[in-house]
Amino acid sequence: MKPGKVTLLSAGPGALDLLTLRAARVLGEADVLLVDDLANPEIATLAPQARVIAVGKRGGCRSTPQVFIERLMCRLARRGAHVVRVKGGDALMFGRAGEEMAALRRAGVPVEIVNGVSAAFAAAAGLGMSLTHRDHCAGVTFVTAHRQDGSAPNWSALAATGTTLAIYMGLQRVETLTATLLGHLSPATPAAAVQWAGTPQERRMVTSLGRLAADVRAAGFTSPAILLVGGAVGEAACADRDGRDALGAAAPDRLASGVMAMADSVIAQAA
Amino acid sequence: MKPGKVTLLSAGPGALDLLTLRAARVLGEADVLLVDDLANPEIATLAPQARVIAVGKRGGCRSTPQVFIERLMCRLARRGAHVVRVKGGDALMFGRAGEEMAALRRAGVPVEIVNGVSAAFAAAAGLGMSLTHRDHCAGVTFVTAHRQDGSAPNWSALAATGTTLAIYMGLQRVETLTATLLGHLSPATPAAAVQWAGTPQERRMVTSLGRLAADVRAAGFTSPAILLVGGAVGEAACADRDGRDALGAAAPDRLASGVMAMADSVIAQAA
Repeated sequence: MKPGKVTLLSAGPGALDLLTLRAARVLGEADVLLVDDLANPEIATLAPQARVIAVGKRGGCRSTPQVFIERLMCRLARRGAHVVRVKGGDALMFGRAGEEMAALRRAGVPVEIVNGVSAAFAAAAGLGMSLTHRDHCAGVTFVTAHRQDGSAPNWSALAATGTTLAIYMGLQRVETLTATLLGHLSPATPAAAVQWAGTPQERRMVTSLGRLAADVRAAGFTSPAILLVGGAVGEAACADRDGRDALGAAAPDRLASGVMAMADSVIAQAA
Repeated sequence: MKPGKVTLLSAGPGALDLLTLRAARVLGEADVLLVDDLANPEIATLAPQARVIAVGKRGGCRSTPQVFIERLMCRLARRGAHVVRVKGGDALMFGRAGEEMAALRRAGVPVEIVNGVSAAFAAAAGLGMSLTHRDHCAGVTFVTAHRQDGSAPNWSALAATGTTLAIYMGLQRVETLTATLLGHLSPATPAAAVQWAGTPQERRMVTSLGRLAADVRAAGFTSPAILLVGGAVGEAACADRDGRDALGAAAPDRLASGVMAMADSVIAQAA
Protein backbone atom coordinates (compact mmCIF):
# COMPACT_ATOMS: atom_id res chain seq x y z
CA MET A 1 0.00 0.00 0.00
CA LYS A 2 1.34 3.44 -0.90
CA PRO A 3 1.80 5.73 2.09
CA GLY A 4 -1.04 8.20 2.61
CA LYS A 5 -0.74 11.87 3.33
CA VAL A 6 -2.78 15.01 3.82
CA THR A 7 -2.42 18.26 1.89
CA LEU A 8 -3.94 21.39 3.39
CA LEU A 9 -4.78 23.20 0.18
CA SER A 10 -5.66 26.88 -0.18
CA ALA A 11 -8.62 27.36 -2.50
CA GLY A 12 -8.22 31.13 -2.67
CA PRO A 13 -11.12 33.57 -2.67
CA GLY A 14 -13.36 31.70 -5.10
CA ALA A 15 -12.49 32.15 -8.77
CA LEU A 16 -10.90 28.90 -9.87
CA ASP A 17 -8.18 30.67 -11.83
CA LEU A 18 -6.91 32.20 -8.58
CA LEU A 19 -5.74 28.73 -7.56
CA THR A 20 -2.00 28.27 -7.85
CA LEU A 21 -0.53 25.95 -10.47
CA ARG A 22 0.63 23.77 -7.57
CA ALA A 23 -2.89 23.57 -6.18
CA ALA A 24 -4.31 22.55 -9.55
CA ARG A 25 -1.73 19.82 -9.84
CA VAL A 26 -2.28 18.50 -6.32
CA LEU A 27 -6.05 18.43 -6.87
CA GLY A 28 -5.47 16.27 -9.93
CA GLU A 29 -3.61 13.77 -7.75
CA ALA A 30 -6.12 13.68 -4.88
CA ASP A 31 -7.91 10.53 -3.80
CA VAL A 32 -10.28 12.29 -1.40
CA LEU A 33 -11.31 15.95 -1.12
CA LEU A 34 -12.63 17.35 2.14
CA VAL A 35 -14.16 20.67 1.14
CA ASP A 36 -15.00 23.66 3.34
CA ASP A 37 -18.14 25.70 2.91
CA LEU A 38 -16.13 28.79 2.00
CA ALA A 39 -14.34 27.10 -0.87
CA ASN A 40 -15.89 27.15 -4.34
CA PRO A 41 -17.54 23.71 -4.74
CA GLU A 42 -16.56 23.72 -8.44
CA ILE A 43 -13.04 22.98 -7.25
CA ALA A 44 -14.12 19.33 -7.24
CA THR A 45 -14.11 19.35 -11.04
CA LEU A 46 -10.31 19.72 -10.85
CA ALA A 47 -10.07 16.48 -8.88
CA PRO A 48 -11.70 13.99 -11.23
CA GLN A 49 -10.42 10.89 -9.42
CA ALA A 50 -11.37 12.06 -5.96
CA ARG A 51 -14.22 11.19 -3.71
CA VAL A 52 -15.61 14.51 -2.47
CA ILE A 53 -16.79 15.00 1.10
CA ALA A 54 -18.32 18.31 2.19
CA VAL A 55 -17.28 19.22 5.72
CA GLY A 56 -18.68 22.73 6.01
CA LYS A 57 -19.21 24.60 9.23
CA ARG A 58 -21.59 27.26 7.96
CA GLY A 59 -25.00 27.51 6.38
CA GLY A 60 -28.31 26.06 7.38
CA CYS A 61 -27.18 22.49 7.84
CA ARG A 62 -25.65 20.94 10.89
CA SER A 63 -21.94 21.65 10.95
CA THR A 64 -19.25 18.99 10.89
CA PRO A 65 -17.42 18.81 14.23
CA GLN A 66 -13.73 19.68 13.98
CA VAL A 67 -12.68 16.51 15.79
CA PHE A 68 -14.59 14.42 13.26
CA ILE A 69 -12.78 16.11 10.37
CA GLU A 70 -9.43 15.47 12.01
CA ARG A 71 -10.21 11.80 12.65
CA LEU A 72 -11.49 11.34 9.13
CA MET A 73 -8.31 12.81 7.62
CA CYS A 74 -6.10 10.57 9.75
CA ARG A 75 -8.13 7.48 9.01
CA LEU A 76 -8.18 8.01 5.24
CA ALA A 77 -4.48 8.84 5.09
CA ARG A 78 -3.58 5.77 7.14
CA ARG A 79 -5.38 3.67 4.57
CA GLY A 80 -3.05 5.07 1.94
CA ALA A 81 -5.18 7.89 0.53
CA HIS A 82 -3.86 11.27 -0.58
CA VAL A 83 -6.36 13.41 1.29
CA VAL A 84 -6.69 17.02 0.16
CA ARG A 85 -8.28 19.29 2.73
CA VAL A 86 -9.57 22.29 0.80
CA LYS A 87 -9.81 25.58 2.69
CA GLY A 88 -11.06 28.93 1.44
CA GLY A 89 -8.45 31.69 1.11
CA ASP A 90 -5.03 30.72 2.42
CA ALA A 91 -5.07 27.62 4.60
CA LEU A 92 -2.74 29.23 7.16
CA MET A 93 -5.02 32.18 7.99
CA PHE A 94 -8.26 31.68 9.97
CA GLY A 95 -8.68 28.08 8.87
CA ARG A 96 -7.89 25.94 11.94
CA ALA A 97 -4.88 24.63 10.04
CA GLY A 98 -2.87 24.82 13.25
CA GLU A 99 -5.14 22.36 15.02
CA GLU A 100 -5.35 20.07 12.02
CA MET A 101 -1.58 19.99 11.54
CA ALA A 102 -1.13 19.18 15.23
CA ALA A 103 -3.67 16.33 15.06
CA LEU A 104 -2.04 14.90 11.93
CA ARG A 105 1.42 15.08 13.47
CA ARG A 106 0.23 13.34 16.61
CA ALA A 107 -1.14 10.58 14.37
CA GLY A 108 2.11 10.35 12.42
CA VAL A 109 0.45 11.36 9.16
CA PRO A 110 2.61 13.39 6.74
CA VAL A 111 1.13 16.80 6.01
CA GLU A 112 1.99 19.42 3.43
CA ILE A 113 0.69 22.91 2.77
CA VAL A 114 -0.19 24.57 -0.51
CA ASN A 115 -0.53 28.35 -0.12
CA GLY A 116 -3.08 30.56 -1.82
CA VAL A 117 -4.70 33.97 -1.99
CA SER A 118 -6.59 35.14 1.08
CA ALA A 119 -9.88 36.99 0.63
CA ALA A 120 -8.61 40.38 1.81
CA PHE A 121 -6.10 40.49 -1.05
CA ALA A 122 -8.91 39.88 -3.53
CA ALA A 123 -10.98 42.54 -1.76
CA ALA A 124 -8.16 45.07 -2.17
CA ALA A 125 -7.78 44.11 -5.83
CA GLY A 126 -11.48 44.70 -6.39
CA LEU A 127 -11.23 48.08 -4.72
CA GLY A 128 -8.11 49.00 -6.67
CA MET A 129 -6.07 49.77 -3.56
CA SER A 130 -2.83 48.67 -1.93
CA LEU A 131 -3.23 47.17 1.53
CA THR A 132 -0.08 48.96 2.68
CA HIS A 133 0.18 52.27 0.81
CA ARG A 134 3.35 53.71 2.27
CA ASP A 135 1.94 57.21 2.50
CA HIS A 136 -0.59 55.89 5.00
CA CYS A 137 0.75 52.95 6.98
CA ALA A 138 3.56 50.55 7.79
CA GLY A 139 1.52 47.41 7.22
CA VAL A 140 -1.78 45.60 7.42
CA THR A 141 -3.42 43.54 10.15
CA PHE A 142 -5.69 40.62 9.32
CA VAL A 143 -7.92 40.06 12.32
CA THR A 144 -11.02 38.03 13.04
CA ALA A 145 -13.85 39.63 14.96
CA HIS A 146 -15.08 36.17 15.90
CA ARG A 147 -12.87 34.63 18.57
CA GLN A 148 -13.06 31.09 19.89
CA ASP A 149 -13.66 32.18 23.50
CA GLY A 150 -16.10 34.96 22.63
CA SER A 151 -13.63 37.69 23.55
CA ALA A 152 -13.02 40.69 21.32
CA PRO A 153 -9.66 41.51 19.76
CA ASN A 154 -7.76 44.41 21.34
CA TRP A 155 -9.31 47.06 19.07
CA SER A 156 -7.58 49.84 20.95
CA ALA A 157 -4.13 48.41 20.23
CA LEU A 158 -5.12 47.52 16.67
CA ALA A 159 -6.19 51.12 16.03
CA ALA A 160 -2.98 52.42 17.57
CA THR A 161 -0.80 50.40 15.20
CA GLY A 162 -1.81 52.66 12.34
CA THR A 163 -1.89 49.61 10.07
CA THR A 164 -4.72 48.99 7.63
CA LEU A 165 -7.23 46.72 9.39
CA ALA A 166 -8.64 43.86 7.31
CA ILE A 167 -11.39 42.41 9.45
CA TYR A 168 -12.67 38.90 8.73
CA MET A 169 -16.01 37.67 10.05
CA GLY A 170 -16.86 41.17 11.23
CA LEU A 171 -20.15 41.84 9.49
CA GLN A 172 -22.38 40.26 12.13
CA ARG A 173 -20.94 42.52 14.83
CA VAL A 174 -20.12 45.55 12.70
CA GLU A 175 -22.02 47.93 15.02
CA THR A 176 -20.03 46.86 18.08
CA LEU A 177 -16.66 46.76 16.44
CA THR A 178 -17.01 50.10 14.66
CA ALA A 179 -18.26 51.70 17.88
CA THR A 180 -15.15 50.41 19.65
CA LEU A 181 -12.82 51.54 16.87
CA LEU A 182 -14.47 54.99 16.93
CA GLY A 183 -13.13 55.36 20.45
CA HIS A 184 -9.66 55.45 18.89
CA LEU A 185 -10.05 56.50 15.26
CA SER A 186 -11.76 59.45 13.57
CA PRO A 187 -15.22 58.83 12.06
CA ALA A 188 -13.73 60.16 8.81
CA THR A 189 -11.25 57.26 8.63
CA PRO A 190 -11.77 55.60 5.23
CA ALA A 191 -13.49 52.22 5.40
CA ALA A 192 -14.80 49.67 2.94
CA ALA A 193 -16.73 46.42 2.80
CA VAL A 194 -16.36 43.71 0.19
CA GLN A 195 -18.81 40.83 0.12
CA TRP A 196 -17.83 37.56 -1.61
CA ALA A 197 -14.46 39.07 -2.58
CA GLY A 198 -12.90 37.51 -5.64
CA THR A 199 -16.09 35.83 -6.88
CA PRO A 200 -18.62 36.80 -9.56
CA GLN A 201 -20.99 37.76 -6.71
CA GLU A 202 -18.53 40.35 -5.35
CA ARG A 203 -20.07 43.59 -4.03
CA ARG A 204 -18.01 46.51 -2.79
CA MET A 205 -18.60 49.70 -0.88
CA VAL A 206 -16.28 52.50 0.14
CA THR A 207 -17.40 54.73 2.99
CA SER A 208 -16.07 56.02 6.31
CA LEU A 209 -15.66 54.31 9.66
CA GLY A 210 -18.41 56.51 11.10
CA ARG A 211 -20.90 55.33 8.46
CA LEU A 212 -19.70 51.79 7.85
CA ALA A 213 -22.21 49.98 10.06
CA ALA A 214 -25.25 51.89 8.80
CA ASP A 215 -24.09 51.68 5.19
CA VAL A 216 -23.49 47.94 5.09
CA ARG A 217 -26.88 47.33 6.71
CA ALA A 218 -28.62 49.69 4.30
CA ALA A 219 -26.97 47.98 1.34
CA GLY A 220 -27.96 44.57 2.67
CA PHE A 221 -24.44 43.15 2.77
CA THR A 222 -24.25 39.59 4.11
CA SER A 223 -21.45 37.24 5.13
CA PRO A 224 -18.85 36.39 4.06
CA ALA A 225 -17.50 39.92 3.88
CA ILE A 226 -14.20 41.65 4.51
CA LEU A 227 -14.18 45.02 6.27
CA LEU A 228 -11.24 47.34 5.60
CA VAL A 229 -10.37 50.35 7.76
CA GLY A 230 -7.53 52.84 7.45
CA GLY A 231 -6.00 55.67 5.46
CA ALA A 232 -4.92 53.36 2.63
CA VAL A 233 -8.60 52.61 1.92
CA GLY A 234 -8.96 56.27 0.92
CA GLU A 235 -6.89 55.45 -2.18
CA ALA A 236 -9.50 53.01 -3.48
CA ALA A 237 -10.26 53.63 -7.14
CA CYS A 238 -13.99 54.17 -6.84
CA ALA A 239 -14.46 55.73 -3.46
CA ASP A 240 -18.14 56.47 -3.02
CA ARG A 241 -18.37 58.96 -0.21
CA ASP A 242 -22.14 58.57 -0.06
CA GLY A 243 -21.63 55.08 1.20
CA ARG A 244 -23.75 53.40 -1.40
CA ASP A 245 -22.71 50.24 -3.15
CA ALA A 246 -20.26 52.07 -5.33
CA LEU A 247 -19.33 49.48 -7.88
CA GLY A 248 -22.10 46.95 -7.59
CA ALA A 249 -21.49 43.41 -8.69
CA ALA A 250 -18.06 42.78 -10.12
CA ALA A 251 -17.73 42.83 -13.87
CA PRO A 252 -17.98 39.35 -15.34
CA ASP A 253 -14.54 37.82 -15.03
CA ARG A 254 -13.11 37.61 -18.52
CA LEU A 255 -10.27 35.52 -17.25
CA ALA A 256 -12.49 32.93 -15.62
CA SER A 257 -13.72 31.67 -18.97
CA GLY A 258 -11.67 28.75 -20.10
CA VAL A 259 -10.21 28.08 -16.68
CA MET A 260 -11.56 24.57 -16.69
CA ALA A 261 -9.77 23.78 -19.93
CA MET A 262 -6.60 25.34 -18.52
CA ALA A 263 -6.85 23.21 -15.43
CA ASP A 264 -7.44 20.10 -17.51
CA SER A 265 -4.20 20.80 -19.34
CA VAL A 266 -2.34 21.30 -16.10
CA ILE A 267 -3.63 18.03 -14.76
CA ALA A 268 -2.96 16.16 -17.99
CA GLN A 269 0.59 17.43 -17.92
CA ALA A 270 1.04 16.44 -14.30
CA ALA A 271 -0.29 12.91 -14.84
CA MET B 1 -4.17 50.02 -32.61
CA LYS B 2 -5.48 47.85 -29.79
CA PRO B 3 -5.85 49.69 -26.50
CA GLY B 4 -2.97 49.15 -24.10
CA LYS B 5 -3.20 48.34 -20.44
CA VAL B 6 -1.12 47.49 -17.40
CA THR B 7 -1.46 44.43 -15.20
CA LEU B 8 0.13 44.52 -11.77
CA LEU B 9 0.94 40.84 -11.42
CA SER B 10 1.86 39.02 -8.22
CA ALA B 11 4.78 36.66 -8.76
CA GLY B 12 4.42 35.00 -5.36
CA PRO B 13 7.33 33.98 -3.19
CA GLY B 14 9.52 32.49 -5.92
CA ALA B 15 8.59 28.96 -6.96
CA LEU B 16 6.94 29.28 -10.36
CA ASP B 17 4.21 26.80 -9.49
CA LEU B 18 3.01 29.18 -6.75
CA LEU B 19 1.82 31.54 -9.48
CA THR B 20 -1.93 31.49 -9.96
CA LEU B 21 -3.49 30.05 -13.10
CA ARG B 22 -4.62 33.59 -13.92
CA ALA B 23 -1.07 34.91 -13.60
CA ALA B 24 0.28 32.20 -15.91
CA ARG B 25 -2.35 33.06 -18.49
CA VAL B 26 -1.74 36.82 -18.29
CA LEU B 27 2.02 36.29 -18.65
CA GLY B 28 1.35 34.37 -21.85
CA GLU B 29 -0.50 37.40 -23.22
CA ALA B 30 2.07 40.02 -22.19
CA ASP B 31 3.84 42.26 -24.68
CA VAL B 32 6.26 43.72 -22.16
CA LEU B 33 7.35 42.50 -18.71
CA LEU B 34 8.75 44.89 -16.13
CA VAL B 35 10.32 42.62 -13.53
CA ASP B 36 11.21 43.43 -9.92
CA ASP B 37 14.38 42.16 -8.28
CA LEU B 38 12.41 40.12 -5.79
CA ALA B 39 10.53 38.19 -8.47
CA ASN B 40 12.01 34.98 -9.84
CA PRO B 41 13.62 35.98 -13.18
CA GLU B 42 12.57 32.60 -14.64
CA ILE B 43 9.05 34.03 -14.78
CA ALA B 44 10.09 35.50 -18.14
CA THR B 45 10.00 32.00 -19.63
CA LEU B 46 6.21 32.07 -19.15
CA ALA B 47 5.96 35.19 -21.32
CA PRO B 48 7.52 34.00 -24.58
CA GLN B 49 6.25 36.94 -26.66
CA ALA B 50 7.27 39.62 -24.22
CA ARG B 51 10.16 42.01 -24.15
CA VAL B 52 11.62 41.79 -20.65
CA ILE B 53 12.86 44.84 -18.78
CA ALA B 54 14.46 44.48 -15.35
CA VAL B 55 13.50 47.35 -13.06
CA GLY B 56 14.94 46.18 -9.77
CA LYS B 57 15.58 48.36 -6.76
CA ARG B 58 17.98 46.08 -4.91
CA GLY B 59 21.36 44.48 -5.41
CA GLY B 60 24.65 45.92 -6.47
CA CYS B 61 23.46 47.79 -9.52
CA ARG B 62 22.01 51.24 -9.66
CA SER B 63 18.31 51.11 -8.87
CA THR B 64 15.56 52.16 -11.25
CA PRO B 65 13.79 55.31 -10.03
CA GLN B 66 10.11 54.77 -9.25
CA VAL B 67 9.06 57.72 -11.40
CA PHE B 68 10.87 56.23 -14.38
CA ILE B 69 9.04 52.92 -13.96
CA GLU B 70 5.71 54.72 -13.82
CA ARG B 71 6.45 56.78 -16.93
CA LEU B 72 7.65 53.73 -18.80
CA MET B 73 4.46 51.80 -18.00
CA CYS B 74 2.26 54.67 -19.13
CA ARG B 75 4.23 55.20 -22.32
CA LEU B 76 4.23 51.55 -23.35
CA ALA B 77 0.53 51.12 -22.57
CA ARG B 78 -0.38 54.23 -24.54
CA ARG B 79 1.36 52.71 -27.53
CA GLY B 80 -1.01 49.76 -27.26
CA ALA B 81 1.13 47.31 -25.29
CA HIS B 82 -0.15 44.96 -22.62
CA VAL B 83 2.41 45.77 -19.97
CA VAL B 84 2.77 43.28 -17.12
CA ARG B 85 4.44 44.70 -14.04
CA VAL B 86 5.73 41.72 -12.10
CA LYS B 87 6.05 42.12 -8.34
CA GLY B 88 7.32 39.62 -5.79
CA GLY B 89 4.74 38.23 -3.34
CA ASP B 90 1.32 39.86 -3.64
CA ALA B 91 1.36 43.11 -5.59
CA LEU B 92 -0.88 44.82 -3.04
CA MET B 93 1.45 44.37 -0.06
CA PHE B 94 4.73 46.34 0.21
CA GLY B 95 5.08 46.78 -3.54
CA ARG B 96 4.33 50.45 -4.24
CA ALA B 97 1.26 49.29 -6.13
CA GLY B 98 -0.69 52.18 -4.64
CA GLU B 99 1.59 54.76 -6.21
CA GLU B 100 1.70 52.93 -9.51
CA MET B 101 -2.09 52.57 -9.71
CA ALA B 102 -2.47 56.28 -8.95
CA ALA B 103 0.01 57.24 -11.69
CA LEU B 104 -1.70 54.97 -14.22
CA ARG B 105 -5.13 56.35 -13.37
CA ARG B 106 -3.89 59.92 -13.72
CA ALA B 107 -2.61 58.95 -17.17
CA GLY B 108 -5.90 57.32 -18.11
CA VAL B 109 -4.29 53.89 -18.52
CA PRO B 110 -6.46 50.88 -17.60
CA VAL B 111 -4.95 48.83 -14.80
CA GLU B 112 -5.83 45.42 -13.43
CA ILE B 113 -4.49 43.40 -10.52
CA VAL B 114 -3.64 39.71 -10.34
CA ASN B 115 -3.25 38.55 -6.74
CA GLY B 116 -0.71 36.07 -5.45
CA VAL B 117 0.95 34.51 -2.43
CA SER B 118 2.92 36.83 -0.16
CA ALA B 119 6.22 35.62 1.28
CA ALA B 120 5.02 35.36 4.89
CA PHE B 121 2.46 32.73 3.88
CA ALA B 122 5.21 30.67 2.28
CA ALA B 123 7.34 31.19 5.39
CA ALA B 124 4.55 29.83 7.59
CA ALA B 125 4.08 26.87 5.25
CA GLY B 126 7.78 26.09 5.49
CA LEU B 127 7.61 26.24 9.26
CA GLY B 128 4.44 24.13 9.37
CA MET B 129 2.49 26.69 11.39
CA SER B 130 -0.73 28.67 11.09
CA LEU B 131 -0.26 32.43 11.11
CA THR B 132 -3.37 32.81 13.26
CA HIS B 133 -3.62 29.77 15.54
CA ARG B 134 -6.75 30.56 17.50
CA ASP B 135 -5.29 29.35 20.80
CA HIS B 136 -2.73 32.14 20.54
CA CYS B 137 -4.06 35.15 18.67
CA ALA B 138 -6.87 36.90 16.84
CA GLY B 139 -4.89 37.62 13.71
CA VAL B 140 -1.61 38.48 12.06
CA THR B 141 0.07 41.78 11.24
CA PHE B 142 2.28 42.17 8.18
CA VAL B 143 4.57 45.11 8.84
CA THR B 144 7.65 46.55 7.21
CA ALA B 145 10.54 47.60 9.39
CA HIS B 146 11.75 49.85 6.58
CA ARG B 147 9.56 52.94 6.27
CA GLN B 148 9.75 55.56 3.57
CA ASP B 149 10.45 58.41 5.99
CA GLY B 150 12.91 56.46 8.15
CA SER B 151 10.47 56.25 11.06
CA ALA B 152 9.85 53.02 12.94
CA PRO B 153 6.47 51.32 13.12
CA ASN B 154 4.65 51.61 16.44
CA TRP B 155 6.19 48.45 17.93
CA SER B 156 4.52 49.07 21.28
CA ALA B 157 1.05 49.04 19.74
CA LEU B 158 1.94 46.13 17.48
CA ALA B 159 3.05 44.08 20.48
CA ALA B 160 -0.12 45.01 22.38
CA THR B 161 -2.37 43.68 19.60
CA GLY B 162 -1.38 40.13 20.51
CA THR B 163 -1.38 39.28 16.79
CA THR B 164 1.38 37.27 15.20
CA LEU B 165 3.89 39.75 13.77
CA ALA B 166 5.22 38.99 10.29
CA ILE B 167 8.00 41.49 9.76
CA TYR B 168 9.23 42.22 6.24
CA MET B 169 12.58 43.88 5.57
CA GLY B 170 13.49 43.53 9.24
CA LEU B 171 16.75 41.63 9.08
CA GLN B 172 19.02 44.64 8.66
CA ARG B 173 17.67 46.23 11.84
CA VAL B 174 16.84 43.07 13.77
CA GLU B 175 18.82 44.20 16.85
CA THR B 176 16.88 47.46 17.14
CA LEU B 177 13.47 46.04 16.46
CA THR B 178 13.83 43.07 18.80
CA ALA B 179 15.17 45.35 21.53
CA THR B 180 12.08 47.54 21.12
CA LEU B 181 9.71 44.58 21.09
CA LEU B 182 11.40 43.22 24.23
CA GLY B 183 10.13 46.31 26.02
CA HIS B 184 6.63 44.89 25.52
CA LEU B 185 6.96 41.14 25.03
CA SER B 186 8.68 38.39 27.01
CA PRO B 187 12.09 37.21 25.77
CA ALA B 188 10.55 33.72 25.70
CA THR B 189 8.03 34.76 23.03
CA PRO B 190 8.46 32.31 20.14
CA ALA B 191 10.15 33.80 17.08
CA ALA B 192 11.36 32.56 13.72
CA ALA B 193 13.24 33.71 10.66
CA VAL B 194 12.79 32.42 7.13
CA GLN B 195 15.20 33.49 4.42
CA TRP B 196 14.14 33.23 0.76
CA ALA B 197 10.77 31.79 1.81
CA GLY B 198 9.11 29.64 -0.83
CA THR B 199 12.26 29.13 -2.92
CA PRO B 200 14.74 26.26 -3.17
CA GLN B 201 17.18 28.43 -1.18
CA GLU B 202 14.79 28.67 1.78
CA ARG B 203 16.39 28.55 5.24
CA ARG B 204 14.40 28.54 8.45
CA MET B 205 15.08 28.99 12.13
CA VAL B 206 12.82 28.82 15.16
CA THR B 207 14.04 30.51 18.33
CA SER B 208 12.80 33.05 20.87
CA LEU B 209 12.42 36.81 20.67
CA GLY B 210 15.23 37.21 23.19
CA ARG B 211 17.63 35.23 21.00
CA LEU B 212 16.40 36.12 17.54
CA ALA B 213 18.93 38.83 16.72
CA ALA B 214 21.96 36.87 17.89
CA ASP B 215 20.74 33.66 16.28
CA VAL B 216 20.07 35.09 12.81
CA ARG B 217 23.48 36.77 12.85
CA ALA B 218 25.21 33.58 14.00
CA ALA B 219 23.47 31.59 11.28
CA GLY B 220 24.45 34.17 8.67
CA PHE B 221 20.90 34.90 7.49
CA THR B 222 20.69 37.54 4.79
CA SER B 223 17.88 39.48 3.09
CA PRO B 224 15.26 38.88 1.93
CA ALA B 225 13.96 37.31 5.12
CA ILE B 226 10.69 37.25 7.03
CA LEU B 227 10.76 37.48 10.82
CA LEU B 228 7.83 35.98 12.73
CA VAL B 229 7.06 36.75 16.38
CA GLY B 230 4.23 35.51 18.59
CA GLY B 231 2.69 32.57 20.40
CA ALA B 232 1.53 30.93 17.18
CA VAL B 233 5.18 30.52 16.14
CA GLY B 234 5.56 28.13 19.06
CA GLU B 235 3.41 25.66 17.13
CA ALA B 236 5.95 25.42 14.29
CA ALA B 237 6.61 21.81 13.37
CA CYS B 238 10.33 21.75 13.99
CA ALA B 239 10.84 24.24 16.75
CA ASP B 240 14.51 24.20 17.66
CA ARG B 241 14.75 25.81 21.07
CA ASP B 242 18.51 26.04 20.78
CA GLY B 243 18.06 28.60 18.09
CA ARG B 244 20.12 26.85 15.47
CA ASP B 245 19.07 26.59 11.87
CA ALA B 246 16.56 23.91 12.65
CA LEU B 247 15.55 22.71 9.25
CA GLY B 248 18.30 23.96 6.99
CA ALA B 249 17.62 24.33 3.33
CA ALA B 250 14.16 23.31 2.23
CA ALA B 251 13.74 19.87 0.79
CA PRO B 252 13.94 19.91 -2.99
CA ASP B 253 10.51 20.83 -4.23
CA ARG B 254 9.02 17.76 -5.81
CA LEU B 255 6.18 19.83 -7.13
CA ALA B 256 8.41 22.31 -8.91
CA SER B 257 9.56 19.76 -11.44
CA GLY B 258 7.46 19.92 -14.54
CA VAL B 259 6.12 23.36 -13.77
CA MET B 260 7.44 24.74 -17.02
CA ALA B 261 5.57 22.13 -19.01
CA MET B 262 2.45 22.84 -16.97
CA ALA B 263 2.73 26.53 -17.67
CA ASP B 264 3.26 25.85 -21.37
CA SER B 265 0.00 23.94 -21.40
CA VAL B 266 -1.81 26.72 -19.63
CA ILE B 267 -0.53 29.24 -22.10
CA ALA B 268 -1.27 27.03 -25.10
CA GLN B 269 -4.80 26.62 -23.85
CA ALA B 270 -5.23 30.33 -23.28
CA ALA B 271 -3.94 31.24 -26.75
